[in-house]
Amino acid sequence: MIKDIVELLKIIVFFETNLLFFINNNLRYLQTIMNTNKSSIPKGMRDFNSDVMQKRNYIFKTIKKTFECYGYTPIETPAMENISTLTGKYGDEGDRLIFKVLNSGDFLSKVDFDTISTSKVLTKKIAEKALRYDLTVPFARFVVQNRNDITFPFKRYQMQNVWRADRPQKGRYREFFQCDADVIGTESLLCEVELVQLYDDVYSQLKIPNIDICINNRKVLNGMVELMQATDLFDDIVIILDKLDVIGVEKSKDEMQKIGVKTDSLLILDSFLNAKTISEISFLLDQSEIGKRGLEELKFVIDNVTNIGLQSANLKFDITLARGINYYTGCILEVKSNDVKIGSIGGGGRYDDLTSNFGLNDISGVGISFGIDRIYLVMQELNLFPNNLDLSTKVMFANFGAAEATYCLPLLKQLRAAGISSELYPTNNKIKKQMAYANNKGVQFVIMVGENEMKSGILSVKNMKTGIQSNLSIIDLVKQFC
Amino acid sequence: MIKDIVELLKIIVFFETNLLFFINNNLRYLQTIMNTNKSSIPKGMRDFNSDVMQKRNYIFKTIKKTFECYGYTPIETPAMENISTLTGKYGDEGDRLIFKVLNSGDFLSKVDFDTISTSKVLTKKIAEKALRYDLTVPFARFVVQNRNDITFPFKRYQMQNVWRADRPQKGRYREFFQCDADVIGTESLLCEVELVQLYDDVYSQLKIPNIDICINNRKVLNGMVELMQATDLFDDIVIILDKLDVIGVEKSKDEMQKIGVKTDSLLILDSFLNAKTISEISFLLDQSEIGKRGLEELKFVIDNVTNIGLQSANLKFDITLARGINYYTGCILEVKSNDVKIGSIGGGGRYDDLTSNFGLNDISGVGISFGIDRIYLVMQELNLFPNNLDLSTKVMFANFGAAEATYCLPLLKQLRAAGISSELYPTNNKIKKQMAYANNKGVQFVIMVGENEMKSGILSVKNMKTGIQSNLSIIDLVKQFC
Repeated sequence: MIKDIVELLKIIVFFETNLLFFINNNLRYLQTIMNTNKSSIPKGMRDFNSDVMQKRNYIFKTIKKTFECYGYTPIETPAMENISTLTGKYGDEGDRLIFKVLNSGDFLSKVDFDTISTSKVLTKKIAEKALRYDLTVPFARFVVQNRNDITFPFKRYQMQNVWRADRPQKGRYREFFQCDADVIGTESLLCEVELVQLYDDVYSQLKIPNIDICINNRKVLNGMVELMQATDLFDDIVIILDKLDVIGVEKSKDEMQKIGVKTDSLLILDSFLNAKTISEISFLLDQSEIGKRGLEELKFVIDNVTNIGLQSANLKFDITLARGINYYTGCILEVKSNDVKIGSIGGGGRYDDLTSNFGLNDISGVGISFGIDRIYLVMQELNLFPNNLDLSTKVMFANFGAAEATYCLPLLKQLRAAGISSELYPTNNKIKKQMAYANNKGVQFVIMVGENEMKSGILSVKNMKTGIQSNLSIIDLVKQFC
Repeated sequence: MIKDIVELLKIIVFFETNLLFFINNNLRYLQTIMNTNKSSIPKGMRDFNSDVMQKRNYIFKTIKKTFECYGYTPIETPAMENISTLTGKYGDEGDRLIFKVLNSGDFLSKVDFDTISTSKVLTKKIAEKALRYDLTVPFARFVVQNRNDITFPFKRYQMQNVWRADRPQKGRYREFFQCDADVIGTESLLCEVELVQLYDDVYSQLKIPNIDICINNRKVLNGMVELMQATDLFDDIVIILDKLDVIGVEKSKDEMQKIGVKTDSLLILDSFLNAKTISEISFLLDQSEIGKRGLEELKFVIDNVTNIGLQSANLKFDITLARGINYYTGCILEVKSNDVKIGSIGGGGRYDDLTSNFGLNDISGVGISFGIDRIYLVMQELNLFPNNLDLSTKVMFANFGAAEATYCLPLLKQLRAAGISSELYPTNNKIKKQMAYANNKGVQFVIMVGENEMKSGILSVKNMKTGIQSNLSIIDLVKQFC
């Protein structure tokens, strides 16, 4: 019995010793685990490391080059706008998802607490600024504010982040990048034609296969809803149509019934949903003036695009395409990948009078947006990024000590002056560690300068890919790399 | 008498008629004036038009290219960080200037009004996120969060906007761009040497003359304050020193006396301020260990930079250089233009343990930042931007009607496929208006396609600079422009 207890005590002591030993040895690691919450970022936000950045920059460059080739010039607007600039442009849902910025200083000093009933009421008193929700509304504001300096029609592109307090999921973030091209100040449908070509051109250059550019016209939808005798429900019907491809036809019809659409009207909706061609829709819209006008516009764009021909994308008429944003009034576009199901990777349309919100009437505009973050996901999933994107350091000088490092500094300067990306390892760590660093960073050549090299002026150069070592003067080295 | 009244009435009628006429004719203009508040942006924020964008991009490109040439790789962090990530890193003044983002949804639902005493208390309950205040602190957070994927020493660059609720003035905005290069994970002073060279390289490429790169070391200041027997007042003394060049020596001393620095200590300060060379400072610091260490570091950097030689900037030791931000611990740098008085156009330094805030100890880093917005102002004032920056449309097809436009579309496609920036004027406005548009946009060639050109396939091409008109087939046109 006593023997058993002694054995038990031995086991306990053994465990405790080991536990203490483990804790002691992993103290730093455990501390780090406990501190992880200190080094996190808000949900829906992302860091981009160098590898991801190089890939994103490849997409940016392609889009930017194409925008410029089509005659669009760059502008930028601030991250923060007055809240009044943004609210009421994106629908109720949009208004809710706008990030508001707290007034600086003692923002409560002018607030009377007795009058605060809800968060909404207080928000108006303590937040005057909000973060950009898209690029189109700030663009409209920009146009009005700078109208005296702008020659119309004005073709601009804009590539900036936008922020939405949306629920994060795959391909949906709270901070994401938009690349927009818009033409404002003309009603010409040639702009729509050009924007479809621009979509096709960019996706072709990025070599993304199986792209559908879906097209519809808000006036066609106006016509349809008019025939359904539900014009007053137009905005709500559009929101339901917009998610039809996710929730299905039956559920959409249920939802429409809930908001007051009558059974007869749903039969008319059915006839539209079953009509697959423009001519069938044309037949249905015979009694609606606005619908017929929309269809004319649609035909003009499709005919011209078809005549010129697209490089790789397919232009597809889709009567269910609605676009969730309030301001569209004419042609609407949405781009999808058939290979990766991730929602739209681009979208846009015509907005007839967005600038009137800011006091300038009768200025029609049309534009498209590229969803960089989703394009990235599609290209990553289909393995479409070129292999030679990494533009990291080409040449690294190994560091064998203070004198050697000092000797390398002017050589390094010569390489850099010739535009050759190069660096000197900053400390004389073990050569194995320095080589591992070079390897990790994708360095192509490591130059080793020791006593002999300093005497002779002939450098020892190691090709990191082949492992071959050669001896060269700095002049020959620069020549070889240029 | 009656005559006079009649005359008076005549005058009144004349005025009123004119007033009505004026109002009627300027109705749209008056409406616009009344609406201008609708199209404004928050103070301290800016729009950038295409002209400004091209110039800014020129600066960005130069810096980016140089960063990459020196072996730095790009990363990006989100615009919003958790408030806890940012507070306590920039000093009290910094904390106040951080923009806070209101929580989404019904943020008041969990707030008990009886417990709210001040704006500060409420802020903690209704705002969890804040906007980036600089790039260094988010970078330290990034390093800790991604430490398992990073090979140290880690050389990264980052070019993003930051936001500060500062009082706007010339060269100081509430949204501005920073371009940072940092090396983290090594104490090697070769990094400081490299960063001074990098500054010199960029400013030389931008051809900005009369640049001073001021250098000092926080440890030297630690030593000085130690000898002043005011170590507990170090942070406050640094803040006063930081603005010494603005408020002058006498006022600085007054302020120091106010915070408790003794008269004897001010005499010691005087001796430091009067010492102009390193060796004089060396003599003064003889009794301070930390001061001597700082001076050794300073000498190493200055000696090495001097040996290698700078291209155009001057490296200047400045004992009054302090840098306002809390986290610096070693070498500090600040760049100034002697031609344009606008404050610093770059700054940086070594921070020994910034990552420990996020749970990772003993990681030293050093970095520099370029203040793009001020560099822009300096270059603008000194007229340093190249003339050929505008990369707008090269070729424009005039529009003579529907048939002609349709004819032009495939030709336009050919030009664009050859990478020639080109566009078709979207409507058949009067040719005078189309030409004015082309002129305003800096278009180099206008192609005119009428009935004859459509028949012959030979296009009429007008050189907008020389006015010379020539006739070419589309194939010859592409050849000429490529």
